[in-house]
Amino acid sequence: MRTLQVDLGDRSYPIYIGSGLLNEAGLIFAKHQLSKKSPVLIVTDDHVAPLYLKRVEENLQAEGYRTVSKVVKAGEKAKSLDVFHDVMTAAIEGGLDRRSAVVALGGGVVGDLAGFVAATYMRGVPFVQMPTTILAHDSSVGGKVAINHPLAKNMIGAFHQPELVLYDVDTLRTLPEREIRAGLSEMVKHGLIWDAEFAAWCGENTDRLLALDPETLSYGLTMGCSIKAQVVSQDERELGLRAILNLGHTIGHALEAIGGYGEFLHGEAISIGMAASALIAVNRGADRALYAETVRLLGGFGLPTVMPEHLDEERIIGAMMHDKKFKEQQLVFVLPVAIGQVEIVSDVKVEEVRRVIRELKKEGPHV
Amino acid sequence: MRTLQVDLGDRSYPIYIGSGLLNEAGLIFAKHQLSKKSPVLIVTDDHVAPLYLKRVEENLQAEGYRTVSKVVKAGEKAKSLDVFHDVMTAAIEGGLDRRSAVVALGGGVVGDLAGFVAATYMRGVPFVQMPTTILAHDSSVGGKVAINHPLAKNMIGAFHQPELVLYDVDTLRTLPEREIRAGLSEMVKHGLIWDAEFAAWCGENTDRLLALDPETLSYGLTMGCSIKAQVVSQDERELGLRAILNLGHTIGHALEAIGGYGEFLHGEAISIGMAASALIAVNRGADRALYAETVRLLGGFGLPTVMPEHLDEERIIGAMMHDKKFKEQQLVFVLPVAIGQVEIVSDVKVEEVRRVIRELKKEGPHV
Repeated sequence: MRTLQVDLGDRSYPIYIGSGLLNEAGLIFAKHQLSKKSPVLIVTDDHVAPLYLKRVEENLQAEGYRTVSKVVKAGEKAKSLDVFHDVMTAAIEGGLDRRSAVVALGGGVVGDLAGFVAATYMRGVPFVQMPTTILAHDSSVGGKVAINHPLAKNMIGAFHQPELVLYDVDTLRTLPEREIRAGLSEMVKHGLIWDAEFAAWCGENTDRLLALDPETLSYGLTMGCSIKAQVVSQDERELGLRAILNLGHTIGHALEAIGGYGEFLHGEAISIGMAASALIAVNRGADRALYAETVRLLGGFGLPTVMPEHLDEERIIGAMMHDKKFKEQQLVFVLPVAIGQVEIVSDVKVEEVRRVIRELKKEGPHV
Repeated sequence: MRTLQVDLGDRSYPIYIGSGLLNEAGLIFAKHQLSKKSPVLIVTDDHVAPLYLKRVEENLQAEGYRTVSKVVKAGEKAKSLDVFHDVMTAAIEGGLDRRSAVVALGGGVVGDLAGFVAATYMRGVPFVQMPTTILAHDSSVGGKVAINHPLAKNMIGAFHQPELVLYDVDTLRTLPEREIRAGLSEMVKHGLIWDAEFAAWCGENTDRLLALDPETLSYGLTMGCSIKAQVVSQDERELGLRAILNLGHTIGHALEAIGGYGEFLHGEAISIGMAASALIAVNRGADRALYAETVRLLGGFGLPTVMPEHLDEERIIGAMMHDKKFKEQQLVFVLPVAIGQVEIVSDVKVEEVRRVIRELKKEGPHV
């Protein structure tokens, strides 16, 4: 088991990464002094529940915890106000009080939903992340929780740090291949924004990562979490630096939105977004090798880096205008400077985005 | 104009109390560096809008602010997830960004709703309170914001401190008499929990307060806000001391809930709750004069202090069980020790509550 500390003053918390950790949940909860007198709410989805819910419930109960579980339908649609309301109902009916923990057992969607419930139930209760996807190595660190508004993704949310993150890598073995690829997209992103050596390592270990080799994967996840934790520690509420984590997200979120949160997985959308950001940087004078290397790295994982022909340019631009990163009428973009280094620029013109959308449509078919 | 500082470290903020302040909104916003590049969202209700909305919009616009307004139906039902969703839609369609301020122009309901929007829109944007009721002297201080779940009041919320509170006492002149009485209930509460001298002053100035004598009212509101601010400064997130502000609220919230948030105004419900708390204290050995004086003070303002016959005991108890103050299977109550002093006890038995419900039903008809 590897332990990584996210350093946020009195909101600091540990991330435990390793094999078999679901079987130690009760002990770890107790070690962190989560109340045994107050019911624990486990939020999960109907893909994860049949695989791991019973084991987690029984493990917590064996340690003296009372548990209440709420299973939501898998997929981004669980991040709606309606589902949020249903989870709140389960929390109230289950008798949760201010010391109750809300547990997210699942991927990023469940983490965001359960985290927003934890942030707002009785104005905030303890929160525990138990990620079961690769993508969640990213979303489980940093305290950003949110649900979607029909007009824009993650528009309703909060900053709510977990008490701990319990990352059992055994749960990743049941992931569909497409989700494995998409999950590794955020891992590559952490290399691209912060650590050229780690980016290169991702390139050299692509096959081992895709095959979920335990040692390789544990190292990659620990590095990814560690980079994210370093950034978040320096800027918890995204006043400056933290925005670099949004590499690829301005366009990525727009693609997810116009695809109805169904066509693209998050990791696929930001993969296209990262390729687009590199191309904007190249059009502004950066070496074309920066774009080529970005595309090579992402492509190695089977991730898309071209813009599907059928996506309407106007709709992409329109969706971007609703994004949180559209600040005071300026388009804010994270652009690469070199592999492992990015900058935040706030003067990207809509025309520059239109240009790369067109260029990326010519690069070839959607992978 | 009186200015009162709420001392909360880097979340400190001022409360401006005085006459004609709506006409200085733009200047005060600018002084507090609220962004003029980002649209401001004014949330108000259909009682307040015809009286003050245009004036606030024009005043802000004259100072260079762009404004977007959302008018909700007056009443507690505005604190629903549906209305919350509608206000979020207005915020998104109005193009609010992370620097936009959300303004609550109205009473406690509008303050709670708009405050929860400010707390969660894009994970938190600046918030300004412009209270137009007496009751809001209480709710506008302290950063508690929330909406209701059908099963329980204020169940979904956050702590989100405003940038400033702008309290124009001229707006109180348009309040219905019943709301004036109910609003003064929280003012009396501040005396009862913290300051015997101020409680006595409320008793001596009952008529002047009910007549909205400007000087008397300004002093009373400043004292009420000041007591609340002192308590909140010592315990922002209600880990201990702050709970004393809940005097009368355990039973009060239950009465509001079973009345469908329609039968009682908040101030009326907590008036009955304060009488009940005093009676529990008496039944536990306190001097009966404590109960008599509490009832005399509240009754002087025309506030109810007996339990209406038609309210079902089981439903009151049932509603209390869903309350946030029901912690780890114990009933937590704020009980008076003397006028101006309370204690938090966590061992109140359900039977003690049943007893005072019955006793208060015999005390006479509902005022």
